[in-house]
Amino acid sequence: MAGSSFGKAFIVSTFGESHGSGIGVVIDGCPAGLNIDQEFIQSQLDRRKPGQSHISTPRSEKDKLQILSGVLNDISTGAPIAIWIGNFDQHSQDYDHIKQAFRPSHADYTYFQKYGLRDHRGGGRSSARETAARVAAGSIAALLCRHFGITILGYVSSIGNIALTKYVFECTLDKVDQTPVRCPDLELAKLMEKNIIEAKEKGDSLGGNIHCIIEGVKPGLGEPVFDRLEADLAKAMLSINAVKAFEIGSGFAGTTQYGSEHNDPFTTTEDGSVRTTSNNSGGVQGGISNGMPIYFRVGFKPTSTILQSQQSINEKGEAITIEGKGRHDPCVVPRAVPIVESMAALVIADHVLRNRTSRLDIML
Amino acid sequence: MAGSSFGKAFIVSTFGESHGSGIGVVIDGCPAGLNIDQEFIQSQLDRRKPGQSHISTPRSEKDKLQILSGVLNDISTGAPIAIWIGNFDQHSQDYDHIKQAFRPSHADYTYFQKYGLRDHRGGGRSSARETAARVAAGSIAALLCRHFGITILGYVSSIGNIALTKYVFECTLDKVDQTPVRCPDLELAKLMEKNIIEAKEKGDSLGGNIHCIIEGVKPGLGEPVFDRLEADLAKAMLSINAVKAFEIGSGFAGTTQYGSEHNDPFTTTEDGSVRTTSNNSGGVQGGISNGMPIYFRVGFKPTSTILQSQQSINEKGEAITIEGKGRHDPCVVPRAVPIVESMAALVIADHVLRNRTSRLDIML
Amino acid sequence: MAGSSFGKAFIVSTFGESHGSGIGVVIDGCPAGLNIDQEFIQSQLDRRKPGQSHISTPRSEKDKLQILSGVLNDISTGAPIAIWIGNFDQHSQDYDHIKQAFRPSHADYTYFQKYGLRDHRGGGRSSARETAARVAAGSIAALLCRHFGITILGYVSSIGNIALTKYVFECTLDKVDQTPVRCPDLELAKLMEKNIIEAKEKGDSLGGNIHCIIEGVKPGLGEPVFDRLEADLAKAMLSINAVKAFEIGSGFAGTTQYGSEHNDPFTTTEDGSVRTTSNNSGGVQGGISNGMPIYFRVGFKPTSTILQSQQSINEKGEAITIEGKGRHDPCVVPRAVPIVESMAALVIADHVLRNRTSRLDIML
Amino acid sequence: MAGSSFGKAFIVSTFGESHGSGIGVVIDGCPAGLNIDQEFIQSQLDRRKPGQSHISTPRSEKDKLQILSGVLNDISTGAPIAIWIGNFDQHSQDYDHIKQAFRPSHADYTYFQKYGLRDHRGGGRSSARETAARVAAGSIAALLCRHFGITILGYVSSIGNIALTKYVFECTLDKVDQTPVRCPDLELAKLMEKNIIEAKEKGDSLGGNIHCIIEGVKPGLGEPVFDRLEADLAKAMLSINAVKAFEIGSGFAGTTQYGSEHNDPFTTTEDGSVRTTSNNSGGVQGGISNGMPIYFRVGFKPTSTILQSQQSINEKGEAITIEGKGRHDPCVVPRAVPIVESMAALVIADHVLRNRTSRLDIML
Repeated sequence: MAGSSFGKAFIVSTFGESHGSGIGVVIDGCPAGLNIDQEFIQSQLDRRKPGQSHISTPRSEKDKLQILSGVLNDISTGAPIAIWIGNFDQHSQDYDHIKQAFRPSHADYTYFQKYGLRDHRGGGRSSARETAARVAAGSIAALLCRHFGITILGYVSSIGNIALTKYVFECTLDKVDQTPVRCPDLELAKLMEKNIIEAKEKGDSLGGNIHCIIEGVKPGLGEPVFDRLEADLAKAMLSINAVKAFEIGSGFAGTTQYGSEHNDPFTTTEDGSVRTTSNNSGGVQGGISNGMPIYFRVGFKPTSTILQSQQSINEKGEAITIEGKGRHDPCVVPRAVPIVESMAALVIADHVLRNRTSRLDIML
Repeated sequence: MAGSSFGKAFIVSTFGESHGSGIGVVIDGCPAGLNIDQEFIQSQLDRRKPGQSHISTPRSEKDKLQILSGVLNDISTGAPIAIWIGNFDQHSQDYDHIKQAFRPSHADYTYFQKYGLRDHRGGGRSSARETAARVAAGSIAALLCRHFGITILGYVSSIGNIALTKYVFECTLDKVDQTPVRCPDLELAKLMEKNIIEAKEKGDSLGGNIHCIIEGVKPGLGEPVFDRLEADLAKAMLSINAVKAFEIGSGFAGTTQYGSEHNDPFTTTEDGSVRTTSNNSGGVQGGISNGMPIYFRVGFKPTSTILQSQQSINEKGEAITIEGKGRHDPCVVPRAVPIVESMAALVIADHVLRNRTSRLDIML
Repeated sequence: MAGSSFGKAFIVSTFGESHGSGIGVVIDGCPAGLNIDQEFIQSQLDRRKPGQSHISTPRSEKDKLQILSGVLNDISTGAPIAIWIGNFDQHSQDYDHIKQAFRPSHADYTYFQKYGLRDHRGGGRSSARETAARVAAGSIAALLCRHFGITILGYVSSIGNIALTKYVFECTLDKVDQTPVRCPDLELAKLMEKNIIEAKEKGDSLGGNIHCIIEGVKPGLGEPVFDRLEADLAKAMLSINAVKAFEIGSGFAGTTQYGSEHNDPFTTTEDGSVRTTSNNSGGVQGGISNGMPIYFRVGFKPTSTILQSQQSINEKGEAITIEGKGRHDPCVVPRAVPIVESMAALVIADHVLRNRTSRLDIML
Repeated sequence: MAGSSFGKAFIVSTFGESHGSGIGVVIDGCPAGLNIDQEFIQSQLDRRKPGQSHISTPRSEKDKLQILSGVLNDISTGAPIAIWIGNFDQHSQDYDHIKQAFRPSHADYTYFQKYGLRDHRGGGRSSARETAARVAAGSIAALLCRHFGITILGYVSSIGNIALTKYVFECTLDKVDQTPVRCPDLELAKLMEKNIIEAKEKGDSLGGNIHCIIEGVKPGLGEPVFDRLEADLAKAMLSINAVKAFEIGSGFAGTTQYGSEHNDPFTTTEDGSVRTTSNNSGGVQGGISNGMPIYFRVGFKPTSTILQSQQSINEKGEAITIEGKGRHDPCVVPRAVPIVESMAALVIADHVLRNRTSRLDIML
């Protein structure tokens, strides 16, 4: 009911606040026997953490992974896997000036209405810090996906109005991470970086888009009606802070095409496998994977925290001016790449497990 | 696991195939004491059904609502409400020519891979006919929403490349339904209609977009982390056949703005209530409603069924040509308006109920 | 939330009232490819239905199975299987005299408190008629179990104070069904029958116990903590009308033993398989099946409906006398045997499917 | 799927192993504004912990509560409440001698079959240590119950063959805790203690029964069909290690009564409230509370761990003799009292919250 869990077979539940003692996650349903590569998990946490480059916030959270349960000698035992990431660099006093204020486009007001009280220290659960727990769990999901030959890769496709015009299907993690903005097109990456630095200097913030590509998914994942693969991916993405938009395959652009253009004809390849000659469907038909690459785009609004002064009200409803203070990340989109990958991994891992009960003929 | 249910407190489960004896839905969790206005439900079913106008399919499904349980003297009893909609106008033989074929961009191939067998008669569960069950359940959800002062209204905002440029916040059901395309701008509606008729004549199909506006939602609905209101709305929309894209509030366009432009300043109105002076957030902040109108856009790809001949393969992997036959709806978007409204109502009703446990101070 | 569903992978949802148009059930999660043997399902419904013998109620519900969806040519398609059982022999007027009364030990008062209104016609959802829907779904679960070599058999072990002293492990359906009381010991069966007829003549009712034995379950079913096999079986049984008690293996009697007596030593049989030399555990250790027979006992209180006059109150709180009227089943225990079997089958089928994700080493 | 969560509105998920770094629990769905009385929680943990008296194991786990999230200034914030209880006194080497052995009536064999591997250190998740996490969460549930005027009290009703013959409705925590065996009848308590000490001297173990009484529950809690209050209580109890039996109200004994004896007549008290003159139903009718005290009995088999030598097999299937070693608790029943209370509290708190959506007429 309270919505801190995700998934039906590979189930993750996150807990913890940005300015409490730390954040954590429990995974229930990870099969026994999975090699838990802690280095990989930590590397994804490092890609998410603030302070990794000059274009990010100066806050340096350590984000050190600690596995509390469910793993013995680096192998999952079938028991719930709990992971804890302690908080270190909390400056709760940074938030005293907004104790009674409702910051524009933050969750201050809505949480206050929902709960009748507020954990004003850095936004509590609404802080992006909660996503570290998702990355930890999503990285384990990604390891499970990898076991089944599935790879998931995201990259930044736009920052502000600097944008790639197409998906980059031939991409690698190395290409993505060669610049701090995580755009594989180096020309654009430079322009994006410049944009971010300018926004930072003005105390302003920028949004952008992330592309994500999933390859190696066999046909058959996803459920026909409500739990279509694209529905679960959409939910996963819109559950990320600051995300306002999602499209899969041809997306909004495809809505202007004719059916005769948009349909993806099936063909048989020389090795006898089935594929489609175009992929406007984005790898999903009728909610179920068709074996083609799954690709989608996720839109992030500009971060709400800015260092400019803004008009707002306080808990008494009085008009106030909020002065920008504290640490500030002018653009979270590059750091959100591992979050998008992780949420995608949670969806795919869940459906890999769920699909194991669909056909009696291939059950042992 | 198999994904035929939706919601956590107001839970709906659909069943039935397009070419079986009918389709149905069970609602578990509708509070006792709700006035079940069958006329309203039937009116929404009628807005969804094929054959309502010259721009739609000639198939005339009767879509007559039959309440099987959970309602006594037009009042919900608290027991599960089951609704049955019998199938009448089934032409199963229409599908014989595609018995072994995988139609491009249909679910034929993916279902076959998932289940190892196929119900080829009209697509089985993948048929849009399943959405009639959602409209029936969603209409009851809408009645529950209405009880709490919440209204939900959708309309067509684009067909092919004819598009409204802005949301129409001052809109009514009458305005929407004055033309068969359900676009409240009469000029555009005419152009859209023309487009659809041209596509129909070519045996082709068109996609488009639907806007949906939800008003009267009090602050506090939605859950902070995974079950954010926008996440559940995104999932609901992407679970509708042919939907490939979703955006809420400023959406993809907002990703190019600066934070200083995008942030929505709070203010207090003369009557003491809180509102924001802009609404780029789309009524949701931190996953929770803030009392402002919720608005979002849903993108539908062009229908896969066209009357032109197409290249594909059969179950043996052999190349074949599929000739277009049977009844054909060149553009489902106008008929999808009540589906979008219904899925939105399911999300909102669910969160209205879920939110009743969030605060101890206002529990009796 | 409203609790009309059961199971996590093999999920059933029942609907309908005893005196509405009928009752139904939807199964979501039955794998594709299962042979749906309608004769078997109907035979279990027939074993449950009233009026099958002179010791039961004279009401003769037809309880004719109608499959609405999810089955094509007697094979499950993977889509939700909906089953409908129409009501025929409803005498709603039989209940007019209790319209305002709260019958002792019925659900009249509690439903009224819960929902603020009452469907007084025969108890609505609280009627044992709802269990016909469970038997229909449970029979499909039993077919799935049978596919995996699992058999489930129940029988009456006591009626009133006539009781078997031990479980009958060498038993068959034929032995159980050779008398209308469904006790495999023919001597006791006669005494039980006599007891029931005497109670009927006095307008009184009797309770009793059912034993259930599940064989062929491989080691590994059940989940360690909350969803232990015995926990799910206990819930399943206590969810049946009139059940007040459950014990598995040595049960309450085992609580007086020493550990040295109660422990079940492991041994290896000649064919190399593992078994225990005693089975006080009842086939479950640590919540997980160990390959030995699972056996348990379920206690049914005497039916609340009696034909004697009783003191009670009406909705205004006034003291009234309720005269016994209408049809009356002096002992439901024999008819509850297929209900116990069906609920057990739902639990086992659910865990068979759930267990398919526990070990990576045996996933393909 | 993997079953480490319990509840639908007040949802708890436990994690951690007996010989890992500690155990924990996450509560999702605790309403904001609850006073989290840590002393009470710790007191319940202390009642559960080993080594509290001379009749228990000499192991002295500290079981010190640590709240990681969801609580600010002793008030629940609405965010998930995570609790951690570190392990201290682990002697993993104590378990080396059984590394390859399957101990009789332990979960060694079944876990090995389920997961293909074993965490042999003290039983991993199957250890009773996991119940400390339940007690922590259940104590918060009990605080929520208390807010609504509900009290839950358990006591030991039998050890071996020394048994109370009736429920003790006039009981208090002080009376229960005046002896280490937690039986409110002091004469019996002495005999029980003697029994336990004798069993300990023989290296043997004893089982027993716990009674639990819940008072102050308003009419209306529980759901009609599968999630009946007694069904959820049964599941909760059977999910506790070593529990093999459950009965509510008149239980197994009631199955020998006539309906005319067993039915509970309604009456109106002088203050106008409704009650029944007997309470064979145990406070629940049709699955829903009727306002009378809820009472039930839980049967615990003797602990599997004994200090006598036993025959068994190892992972290769070879016959072996297991020598009893390590610390040993001859009877866990007294320590299980807070576990029973906690699981009961989880069920009641869940249904208190769930019931807030049943009636539209009393929703604000």
